[in-house]
Amino acid sequence: MSLLVTNIGELVTNDPAAGEGPLGIVRDAAVVVDGDRVAWVGPRAAAPPADARLDADGGGVLPGFVDSHAHLIFAGDRAAEFAARMAGEPYTGGGIRTTVAATRAASDDDLRASARRLVAEALRQGTTTIEIKSGYGLSVPDEARSLRIAAELTDETTFLGAHVVPAEYADHPDDYVDLVTGPMLAAAAGHARWVDVFCERGAFDGDQARAVLTAGAKAGLGVRVHANQLTEGPGVRLAVELGAASADHCTHLSNADVDALAGGDTVATLLPGAEFSTRSPYPDARRLIDAGATVALATDCNPGSSYTSSMPLCIALAVREMRMTPAEALWSATAGGARALRRTDVGVLRPGARADLVVLDAPSYLHLAYRPGVPLISSVLHRGVQP
Amino acid sequence: MSLLVTNIGELVTNDPAAGEGPLGIVRDAAVVVDGDRVAWVGPRAAAPPADARLDADGGGVLPGFVDSHAHLIFAGDRAAEFAARMAGEPYTGGGIRTTVAATRAASDDDLRASARRLVAEALRQGTTTIEIKSGYGLSVPDEARSLRIAAELTDETTFLGAHVVPAEYADHPDDYVDLVTGPMLAAAAGHARWVDVFCERGAFDGDQARAVLTAGAKAGLGVRVHANQLTEGPGVRLAVELGAASADHCTHLSNADVDALAGGDTVATLLPGAEFSTRSPYPDARRLIDAGATVALATDCNPGSSYTSSMPLCIALAVREMRMTPAEALWSATAGGARALRRTDVGVLRPGARADLVVLDAPSYLHLAYRPGVPLISSVLHRGVQP
Ligand SMILES: [Zn+2]
Ligand SMILES: [Zn+2]
Repeated sequence: MSLLVTNIGELVTNDPAAGEGPLGIVRDAAVVVDGDRVAWVGPRAAAPPADARLDADGGGVLPGFVDSHAHLIFAGDRAAEFAARMAGEPYTGGGIRTTVAATRAASDDDLRASARRLVAEALRQGTTTIEIKSGYGLSVPDEARSLRIAAELTDETTFLGAHVVPAEYADHPDDYVDLVTGPMLAAAAGHARWVDVFCERGAFDGDQARAVLTAGAKAGLGVRVHANQLTEGPGVRLAVELGAASADHCTHLSNADVDALAGGDTVATLLPGAEFSTRSPYPDARRLIDAGATVALATDCNPGSSYTSSMPLCIALAVREMRMTPAEALWSATAGGARALRRTDVGVLRPGARADLVVLDAPSYLHLAYRPGVPLISSVLHRGVQP
Repeated sequence: MSLLVTNIGELVTNDPAAGEGPLGIVRDAAVVVDGDRVAWVGPRAAAPPADARLDADGGGVLPGFVDSHAHLIFAGDRAAEFAARMAGEPYTGGGIRTTVAATRAASDDDLRASARRLVAEALRQGTTTIEIKSGYGLSVPDEARSLRIAAELTDETTFLGAHVVPAEYADHPDDYVDLVTGPMLAAAAGHARWVDVFCERGAFDGDQARAVLTAGAKAGLGVRVHANQLTEGPGVRLAVELGAASADHCTHLSNADVDALAGGDTVATLLPGAEFSTRSPYPDARRLIDAGATVALATDCNPGSSYTSSMPLCIALAVREMRMTPAEALWSATAGGARALRRTDVGVLRPGARADLVVLDAPSYLHLAYRPGVPLISSVLHRGVQP
């Protein structure tokens, strides 16, 4: 079954060979989808015939968003904590334990329903690839079931047993690291593509993070790191040293950190929803881009520090607060996210890529930043299908 | 035809007599709507029978948003200007003339279709009352037709002939003020409820603003003022002196301005979408609230400096950037907007009020700030009808 997407106001391919600039913009374009793949991209007048058509009604068309950082397996919400923080309490990360308790107490079905709802919510907002982390179980069975549920919803599953040290290990955190790198990893590895660690004062130090990531890599998992969110620390350099796909947050960076990111293969994934929701200073995207680092944008969707699933909001914040251009922000939310997941089949519209695309209720991708907060996603194709 | 709204997670009435705190929150509540009016509000168990039911599915229910400041009658967009400004050019307001040229060149049908689309977009986001200004015509026939079209869409129409001095009057602006207060006002008054002026360096000074507002009031229009957006100036004090319903923007305020607002009947309407979209410092909502002023939130929806129609975004920005509590922000976006329009029938859910309400896809209004950017409006009742 093939589908012709036509009457496109402006097509972003992210394929510089196919169109203008780094976004590979084509005007008067059409896209043909065959099954779950893009079959053809080119000028509308030359489009081959197809079984059905999707009229973009003059709206912009983009690759679906790739949200490479989300924590969706949890129970409960922390709206009251949010309101208290907005009234002046600083965010310390301590509230994660509230969610751990609720998550452990929840049934599989409740966790599944909650995650499904968030994935559907993200999809309605144009997110066609989403990474999902564990990290609110923090016990062997609870991390394993978190990842089993995550794997029902996405291929991009991440074992984050090393999110925080759970209360019962507070006095002997190294025993928790042994648990994470031993039995917990063994139980998780079959359901996870990636291993991640929250390398931060109050969570895991450089040595502990190295132990977790090294063990994960040895078990066949790709590496990604929560690095330098609240303070400068060893996270970013460790990520680059270990060849991590991504160092996430990157809010507090030394010059050496920026140089490491610019010189290595590790994407700097910025999560402005977290700074928005914790009233913290934003990462310096310009400094990273100007130094030559690859930047991705993601939501960090989680009930504590960034309960947004909106990639359009992240784009608007990146432009307003992090001085990215609208084009850089769009690239980072699509192709950048794909790089952060080491994927070449998403975040781009070219023959052979996954048929994941977004039709905007606006003539250009510029409107995602120009019209903040407005739901501009008029339709979505996910693996060639309108959900 | 009566309708029972039930299974409400948390009901915000804005009626302190009906429930907890200034928001008048009621739990386990139900609302009965009869025709276009609220007929009954109270505990679910005591709800009278009704012809039909709307299941809120555990979601929060609120009065519909009252957006008391929007500029929806225009043609064209200024996405390229936005992108340039984000790359470093300061916003001066000069770009308004681009929109004036496009608006004058547009057909009535094009202006109508564009405004209708924005009103529908706002309604989907929960805005059930919206003020619409003229101000991109700036000639007698173009201001008159702008207001005729606005009046098809809302009761809250505002004559803003004094938006900027059009290019053809640049050398003799006082002649433009004579036009505005003379023939333009005469042509506009039949279609407008309010008169407004952009009192600002580069637009209209205090004397010119006084002339416009006084003439408008004499013609039977209520008074509102674009005041102190870019600089401290006479706008706010003039608004209070003339008994304006609202002074809008209030970004640069002297102590005397704050005292005037706190002591008068003029609402301070804050428009954080404008500061977001022009990368400007936000108004100090806390200073105003702590001084005793009444604060409203509105979008300032317009193609130059704030092309958002999202009241939820304004709430999230008010909390994040202006240190309003989520409760204050919600009140200001509903009851506050109603005060700024001198309305007692909207922004509140009590018997006799207009049946304008929003059902959230979230258990509490807190989620509007806690979940920024996420479209959380699951259904809307407007005059008792689901659009
Ligand atoms: Zn995270
Ligand atoms: Zn305005």
